[in-house]
Amino acid sequence: MNYRFLFRILSYVLSIEAALLLIPTLVSAIYKEPLYPFLITIGILLLIALPIMLILKPKNERLYAKEGFVCVGLSWILMSVFGALPFVVGGSIPNFIDAFFEVVSGFTTTGASILTAVEGLPMGILFWRSFTHWIGGMGVLVFVLALIPSESGNTIHLMRAEVPGPQKGKLVPKMRKTAIILYGIYIGLSVIMTTALLCTGMPLYDSLVNTFATAGTGGFSVKNASIAAYNNPAAEWVIASFMLIFGINFNLYFFILIKKLRPIAKNEELRVYLLLTVIFTTLIAVNIWNSACSTFSSVEECIRASFFQVTSIMSTSGYSTVDFNLWPEFSKSILLLLMFTGACAGSTAGGLKLSRIIIIFKTIRLRIKKMLKPNTVIPLKLDGNSIPQETGRNAINYLSIYVVILILTTFVISINGFDLVTNLTATVSCFNNVGPGFGDVIGPMGNYSSFSPFSKLVLSFAMLFGRLEIFPMIIMFSPSSWKSHRKNEG
Amino acid sequence: MNYRFLFRILSYVLSIEAALLLIPTLVSAIYKEPLYPFLITIGILLLIALPIMLILKPKNERLYAKEGFVCVGLSWILMSVFGALPFVVGGSIPNFIDAFFEVVSGFTTTGASILTAVEGLPMGILFWRSFTHWIGGMGVLVFVLALIPSESGNTIHLMRAEVPGPQKGKLVPKMRKTAIILYGIYIGLSVIMTTALLCTGMPLYDSLVNTFATAGTGGFSVKNASIAAYNNPAAEWVIASFMLIFGINFNLYFFILIKKLRPIAKNEELRVYLLLTVIFTTLIAVNIWNSACSTFSSVEECIRASFFQVTSIMSTSGYSTVDFNLWPEFSKSILLLLMFTGACAGSTAGGLKLSRIIIIFKTIRLRIKKMLKPNTVIPLKLDGNSIPQETGRNAINYLSIYVVILILTTFVISINGFDLVTNLTATVSCFNNVGPGFGDVIGPMGNYSSFSPFSKLVLSFAMLFGRLEIFPMIIMFSPSSWKSHRKNEG
Repeated sequence: MNYRFLFRILSYVLSIEAALLLIPTLVSAIYKEPLYPFLITIGILLLIALPIMLILKPKNERLYAKEGFVCVGLSWILMSVFGALPFVVGGSIPNFIDAFFEVVSGFTTTGASILTAVEGLPMGILFWRSFTHWIGGMGVLVFVLALIPSESGNTIHLMRAEVPGPQKGKLVPKMRKTAIILYGIYIGLSVIMTTALLCTGMPLYDSLVNTFATAGTGGFSVKNASIAAYNNPAAEWVIASFMLIFGINFNLYFFILIKKLRPIAKNEELRVYLLLTVIFTTLIAVNIWNSACSTFSSVEECIRASFFQVTSIMSTSGYSTVDFNLWPEFSKSILLLLMFTGACAGSTAGGLKLSRIIIIFKTIRLRIKKMLKPNTVIPLKLDGNSIPQETGRNAINYLSIYVVILILTTFVISINGFDLVTNLTATVSCFNNVGPGFGDVIGPMGNYSSFSPFSKLVLSFAMLFGRLEIFPMIIMFSPSSWKSHRKNEG
Repeated sequence: MNYRFLFRILSYVLSIEAALLLIPTLVSAIYKEPLYPFLITIGILLLIALPIMLILKPKNERLYAKEGFVCVGLSWILMSVFGALPFVVGGSIPNFIDAFFEVVSGFTTTGASILTAVEGLPMGILFWRSFTHWIGGMGVLVFVLALIPSESGNTIHLMRAEVPGPQKGKLVPKMRKTAIILYGIYIGLSVIMTTALLCTGMPLYDSLVNTFATAGTGGFSVKNASIAAYNNPAAEWVIASFMLIFGINFNLYFFILIKKLRPIAKNEELRVYLLLTVIFTTLIAVNIWNSACSTFSSVEECIRASFFQVTSIMSTSGYSTVDFNLWPEFSKSILLLLMFTGACAGSTAGGLKLSRIIIIFKTIRLRIKKMLKPNTVIPLKLDGNSIPQETGRNAINYLSIYVVILILTTFVISINGFDLVTNLTATVSCFNNVGPGFGDVIGPMGNYSSFSPFSKLVLSFAMLFGRLEIFPMIIMFSPSSWKSHRKNEG
């Protein structure tokens, strides 16, 4: 373990968090709210980060896969620990575990909340809460990479550990430039979205926080009734469309920018994503229109509700305009299915990612063909290109670990005594970074406040496991990672 | 596809079914019930099987893996189709789909029933219903192999496709002898169990049908209140112990017979099986003793209820002595977890099988170690011996397909409009060949009669997929299996 380098990266991360906290501080200043919750947190962060940054000079910048994983895992936990301080210090969420849950839920873009009412909390605090979605969406290590020039060519390990999806690569040869491009697209789309929301008549503050939560596919709202509170159909269409947009692999936007349209046309994941959105929006719309609980005054309202909920769950945002808990079981099953799938790899969405699912299906088909004809060589193809068998195996391994963690987490939180639907959908929702579950407790109109502190911690780590795609967390917790490094390891 | 050989095996299977139907016919004769439901079925079976057997002589006995899978898949479907006839012809279950569901549930040793009341049905019919458990437990192709001498050395493919578990092998070099040993142990244990039940004061008929259902780990009962109806603690202990016993790999009983105790001492699966039984029995006992719904008059009664339910679910029998639906959520979560695990490979139990789960855990750990140290070679070990990496990969692939089928089946039957717990646990229970689910509809006191015919068919196939461990069914349904055979395929 290259401890010097690890501490150095962590000190960067903490000082960037301090810098980012200046923005909600400014918001608090504008609304004439007390600034001390933020200032104290910033002070603590700098007190820890600056000495490390000044004193500790790394001997070498060699960064192995192991350090990449550990670094990302630790960064996210530390960011959440310190990110929770403004809530605790300011008294908005007095209990630290509650605040930790809330901030982990923010950074991991889950959007699961322990707050029973958000209206009435300080504007700066709510701004920070939504802003964590935006930071966590693209990833904080990607941000570090964009800011800090590194002589080391191995920083790709940091990005690999933080950017989700079954296949990881750079857009351009230089790591730093890739990170800048990704953040550039992210900021660009966010600006467009805020403008669109302003055009629908939404106030600036609300447009901003809703953009943060949409761009990061998080789902925290500053209203108790989530997006339904605005009673603004145009804004619902804008948010639904941008949830769809932020669920697409950002690499494709890069291809649009450099006017290379072939990879977009060939992209199977995008095709499946759009197709599933259309199919499931239609199925749900028909199902809820004909259901007993239908209260829609127009077809547009029904399609809007269906489209909004499909993009919200599929992009793992978790926003809601209606209480889908009251929908017929078939529509709820669709939503549950979409919690697992998530949207595209390389987007800000959570879940298993569609491309991983496509690869899993293709690998299974290949395995069965192999069973029947053991001696033939059949390539694994994605987007018309052969991909390594290893990618298929990794996707299948990922699914196995995913299932094991899912089952064990559901089992562990069942100690709380809630019913199976609550336990299962809380786990599925947190692990896939969606937010709301089913049932009265954690449904779109409920929250996670009634879970025990132990369950809240378990679910917080489920969110981190989900956002970082399991391995960084497992490797961070594995004792063998912390032993000294040998030369021959790559 | 070697059609001649396929038809030949199928005609054996059907004529064996005709022979086996003579036993319930005899029971009906003893109880002076009408014999025509069985006689008509036997007649139809022989009319189809005998001409094929007499006319069709296979040119060669070469049997490839593909034929093995297809043969097993088709045998099970045909057995169920014809096995349903006595119910339909006799009017006990007038609807064919219902009868098919019931018999598939019997052969696959699931024990899920569409009957709202079993008491009052003809004794011969109920005998046949329970007898299907006993036939399906060890497998009908294994029976064929035990009876019919084959010159071909490739009949192992038939056994591989029917006997569950991640590792498949012969006990002795000769296939036929292996099959005879397995059936010998099966019959021996069944005789001991029937005797034990008779000693508890249970009538002969009930002792027999309960032995069938326990030996096959099925769970069909001839009483509306299942085993609770006997109000016989001694019988409950006997049945619970034998559910535990029939959940153990039969190979181990063979080792006892030939006095080779080392493989038993080294067997990790057995250790895990017994350990989990003790741990979960204790956890549930403590949990239900302290719960609000506790009505136990003694500690013995509480431990008995817990031990009975743990062995019942883990061996995927599905018997019940209490309504575990009323137990606290934590105990129910344990039962749900055990529905997935099942018991040991090479037993009559369903589920994922413990050895497969052990292999999956070890493979995952190995993958993570490999991530940290890519250049080291780490062997995969089970019972102290190295096993091929391929076995680990296959176990993980199996889990992936398993999860995909589980999720899709739950989704498909959600069209019925039941709640998520019913849909999910119906699927989990049928797919793992357990029987009862959670909730009022399909709980231990409920049944599957309220599902739509479509859902009943879907669940019937889920049971077949589960019992045959997926691949035979997928391969049977894959069009490429039915193309002509090329020489170079192994």
